[in-house]
Amino acid sequence: MALDEFVENLITGSKSFASVATLMKDGSPQVSVMWVDSDGENILVNTAEGRVKTDNFRKDKRVALAIVDSENPYRQAMIRGKVVEETHDGAKEHTDKLAKKYLGLDEYPYHQPGDVRVIFKIKPDSVYKIEV
Amino acid sequence: MALDEFVENLITGSKSFASVATLMKDGSPQVSVMWVDSDGENILVNTAEGRVKTDNFRKDKRVALAIVDSENPYRQAMIRGKVVEETHDGAKEHTDKLAKKYLGLDEYPYHQPGDVRVIFKIKPDSVYKIEV
Repeated sequence: MALDEFVENLITGSKSFASVATLMKDGSPQVSVMWVDSDGENILVNTAEGRVKTDNFRKDKRVALAIVDSENPYRQAMIRGKVVEETHDGAKEHTDKLAKKYLGLDEYPYHQPGDVRVIFKIKPDSVYKIEV
Repeated sequence: MALDEFVENLITGSKSFASVATLMKDGSPQVSVMWVDSDGENILVNTAEGRVKTDNFRKDKRVALAIVDSENPYRQAMIRGKVVEETHDGAKEHTDKLAKKYLGLDEYPYHQPGDVRVIFKIKPDSVYKIEV
């Protein structure tokens, strides 16, 4: 199913950041501010092995995101959904795509030797839109 | 205990928004983008009776916030903490204070008849700082 059009536009139309909430082992919430992408169906975020949110994404697939238009903080989507897929394939190259969008650079500038990147795909269950 | 200085500066130094994660009844996360204030010790958010996040704040006091500098999205605090207090006292006037900060208005322009505002005070347990 195609991603909600408002969400798609938020993601592709500006350098919108996503605040992504995951669940810690004890069930408490955690929030990270992340770059965000779309494959037309799901919301894509890119992180690395060994990080807290990577573990959280795997342990409990229930997540929530707030995506805010970088040009208008009162244009937002608040999303609840689930991680439906993860992949290492193309995940390093995907950071370059994100660096192009967010930093205007051809290559992601923060790669460290040994970093293993991973893409998580999030399917929205509900989308709450705000536009003022 | 005084609020972490970096967090205090983020809150008072710019029109920073907070993405606030709460827990739904089923334990899944929810994120709302909120105006944010400080009383010098705790992080203050202001919402209204009858909203999902109001119920969530009461049901499970564990919350997480990402506060992002409105002038530099790579200056952030990611906070985990707990709701330690709530009050209706002064909560309506507090929206005017927030409207001044965020909208430059003397009065909060979205009051609806019957709205009952409530301030929730959040005490950080951990603060993770990012500044690029």
